[in-house]
Order: sequence, then structure tokens, then C-alpha cells
Amino acid sequence: MKKKVLIVHAHPEPTSLTRGLVEVSVETLQQQGHEVLLSDLYGMQWKAVFDEHDFPFRADPQRLSFVTESGHSYATGQQAPDIASEQRKLLAADAVILQFPLWWFGMPAILKGWVDRVFANRLAYGFKGAGNRYRYGEGGFKGKRALLSVTVGGPANDYSPRGINGPLEQLLFPITHGTLFFPGMDVLPTYAVYGTGGIPAERVAAAKAAWRLRLERLFEDTPIAFRPQNAGDYPDGHELASHVATGQSGLPAHDASTQTALHHQDGGTEIPASLRQSTSELK
Amino acid sequence: MKKKVLIVHAHPEPTSLTRGLVEVSVETLQQQGHEVLLSDLYGMQWKAVFDEHDFPFRADPQRLSFVTESGHSYATGQQAPDIASEQRKLLAADAVILQFPLWWFGMPAILKGWVDRVFANRLAYGFKGAGNRYRYGEGGFKGKRALLSVTVGGPANDYSPRGINGPLEQLLFPITHGTLFFPGMDVLPTYAVYGTGGIPAERVAAAKAAWRLRLERLFEDTPIAFRPQNAGDYPDGHELASHVATGQSGLPAHDASTQTALHHQDGGTEIPASLRQSTSELK
Repeated sequence: MKKKVLIVHAHPEPTSLTRGLVEVSVETLQQQGHEVLLSDLYGMQWKAVFDEHDFPFRADPQRLSFVTESGHSYATGQQAPDIASEQRKLLAADAVILQFPLWWFGMPAILKGWVDRVFANRLAYGFKGAGNRYRYGEGGFKGKRALLSVTVGGPANDYSPRGINGPLEQLLFPITHGTLFFPGMDVLPTYAVYGTGGIPAERVAAAKAAWRLRLERLFEDTPIAFRPQNAGDYPDGHELASHVATGQSGLPAHDASTQTALHHQDGGTEIPASLRQSTSELK
Repeated sequence: MKKKVLIVHAHPEPTSLTRGLVEVSVETLQQQGHEVLLSDLYGMQWKAVFDEHDFPFRADPQRLSFVTESGHSYATGQQAPDIASEQRKLLAADAVILQFPLWWFGMPAILKGWVDRVFANRLAYGFKGAGNRYRYGEGGFKGKRALLSVTVGGPANDYSPRGINGPLEQLLFPITHGTLFFPGMDVLPTYAVYGTGGIPAERVAAAKAAWRLRLERLFEDTPIAFRPQNAGDYPDGHELASHVATGQSGLPAHDASTQTALHHQDGGTEIPASLRQSTSELK
């Protein structure tokens, strides 16, 4: 079935690996009959900095509160045109793919600024003006899928469960969980290419082939099992219930697949709840 | 003893809590006889986007590689003036304090762009042109202290060990460990003020008082016990040795205090190495 897919990408060099993977995205998705929406942030000269110019009609001209002015601008239809345009693309899309080089274990500033400016109050947070009532599995972007495609300079073992940088999926948790799942998107496991400095042509070809397979399964793959706020695991809307992910804490505790995987790796051995800790190596 | 402290901050509203805490920083550090260097990113209209304009003299005019051009520009003294100026401040400083509102569980784009542009190849990574030989405890910023001061909209329990957002120190790991410890800085535990939306005056006063105490101990407090790359814990420079943090994985495994804390919490009980997992709740 024909879907709409928004691709937001952040590398200015047309021959970069990131851009090569973007080309694969466009080609593969179009071949499948999907409609592709593109946000080439460098090409658009996207304004990265969230500032007072984004609020031409202020709720409070005296004091700049981003939360207040973002919600006011969104609710009254007085947003900066580039912000409104990106929101329209997002709202039209069935899936959103962010493609970027990993810089300092996060997004390039131009992409972070896309999030800062486009993910407005009352849309991406404070949904329906109801504070944190709707978040993590519910919110303005519910029903959409999201997927990160990152190019990483360092080798894969630096990002392994006990690798020196930390596991990639944990480093990206502020994006996958905190930015994409927060307003309701179903987030797929990240696609990463490692060791991209001076990457040989055959590895580029292999990376593109693997990415093509991921794209073909964009609407079939199983999302990360992040726990929704309002389905019982967080009775007070803040902390995990004591019977949920018992003995676990930290980032992996918010992925419902973690405990299952733990038991699996341990060959079914029952681990006392008091000893179960975060099981990041299994993500 | 008189020291130099660089404060980099990222909020344009003079009456914001972030800026109020910046004022406390300047006042407190100067009262102690230290010299304060300031980078008011909004005030400076800092260029957030790392792009081709940052490399007026290219090693390869045909194809833009950020790694190549950053290293080339740094090594040949041909950097953009604003980048070189920030590096001079950083290199002069004994400590660096980043003060910012937490936006989408990370830095505002203007501050991420300060890192992207200022943390150059051959200085903050690829030190001495030796790839990853010197990193995590060694590198261009070795011997300096670093400290984050963040203002957070949500309540503290959302960031507790089992809080729905994830523990703050794990969400900030890409910054504390991956950005500041990476080039050699000793990183202190993060200072955070939660629940900043409509924060009452007495809580602002309390937050400023607590921040003042942290500033007064800036050169005495014990840094986070991040494991250095080249002191034995990572024999191959990539992954933890099997005898180090045995049974742990994920982000907390790179903090040497984690295991000790685990034993402490468990009243000295010996936990089988095979069952020891990440102990994020203890951070």
C-alpha cells in the first residue's frame, strides 16, 4: 500500500556515504510505490538556532519562554513559515527517517535544530495542552514510524555491549526514546554503518544493500519495545511500577524486550529479581 | 589559587533560570579570585552549523570531508576565526562549565554546534594525528575540569533510576563521557535543577545557593570515575577487559565507581560475576 515517507538528512557533501544512503532511500521507497518527502537540511540552509525570531507574535513580548511561545505560536497558527512547513510534512508522513553522520555521539547541530524548532509545544510535547498526559506512545505523531540511519566513524567494537564508547542504541536513546517515541512514534532499531573513514567501495556497496533491505521492511519490521506511559507500566506517569522490570534500572528498563532477552541469554535460568540489573548488552 | 574558568551558555533570555545561574557562576568564581571567560552563544550569534564555510583553505576542494578539513585547518592554522577564538579560550581555561536548558534530552542546537565546530580534529579527537591513540582521559584538553549545569522542565522523578525519561546522568553520557572526557577532561557530576516551568522564587533561591556550593568546590570535587582508555581497562583500546566490570555492560560499565556502589548497596553481599549487570540506578 502506498505510504508517505519523510526523509530528513544532514550532510552537505553529495558524494558522502550519508548522501549515498539517502539516494538509496529515495530510490527504494519510490520503487515500492511510496511517496517520498525530502528535507535536505544543508541544501535548505535550515536555520538551526531556536530563538526569538521564531515567534513573530509573542504571548509575552517582555520575557522569552520557549515553552510558552512555542505553544502559543502553534496554537494560534502564527509559527515561522519554515517550522510550519516541516510540521506539515511530518504530519502527512506515515514514516520519518533521519539520516545523519554521528557527531560527538549525537545529531549534527543542524538536525538538532530541526528537532528543537519543529517539535513544538502542544504538538510534540504538551500535546492537547495537557502537560505530560499524552507522551511515550501517545501524542501528536502517534501511528507514524521512525527510523535512524547513522554513519559512524569509529569501528563497531567501540560501540559493542562493553565497547569504550558505549552501545550505540543507548547513546541514541535521547533521540529514539526521548525525541521520537515521546510524541508517539513507533521507533525501529537503528541502522548503522561503522568505520566510515576511508571505507572501501565493496563495504559501501554492502552497506547500501543492507540499508535497502531495511527500507523494504520499513512498514513490517518490529519496533523497539519501548514501554508506553499510559498502558500500566508507569502507574503514576513517572516511574516504573515495582512489578515491572523488577530489579532493572537505567535506559534498558524502558525496553520491554530487555528482560525476555536476559532470560534467553542465560539459557532460561531464573535470576533473582533482586539481582536483575540493566541488561544493555542484550539490546 | 587563581584559575581560569570558561563558561559557555546557551539561553537568550536574560531573566531565564539558566542565565540567573550563569550570573551566580560569574559572581562566585570572581569572588574566589578566579578569572572568568564567557561565551554567551546567543549573544555572540554563534554560527551553529558546521559547513564548508568553516574551511576557507581546503585540503580537498572537490569533496568535503569534515574530518579531513577540520584536521587540515587546525594543523595549518587556517581555521575560521570564531572557531580559533573559542579554542584559545578552551586551551587557556583550567575548567569549562556548560550551562544550558535541556532540550529533547540534550544540548540546544547552538551549543551542539559549538562542540561540532570547536572540537576539531587533531585537537579534541585524532589528537597528535594519532587516530584514537589518545582519548578518554588523554587528549588535547587533558588536565582541565568540566561541569554541566542544566535546567530541566520535567520533575526529578521522571529522571530517577526507574523514571520514565531515564536517569539524567545516562542521558547526558554522550556529552559527559563522549564529548568532555573523550579529549581528556575530568568531568564532575552534573548539576541539575528540575521542574523549572513556573518555578517559585524560593526554589530559584535554593537552586542558586546549591549551585554556588558546587562552584566553590569546582577544583576540589571528585570527578566521575570514567575509565581511561590507556590505563589497562581496555587492553585493545576498544573493549573492557574481561576482568574489568565483569558481568556489567552498557553506559555504567565505563564508570569505575559503579561496581563499588553496587556492593555497597547490597550490604557487602558478594554477587556472582555472571549476574552483575549495569547498575545505572546507583549513579
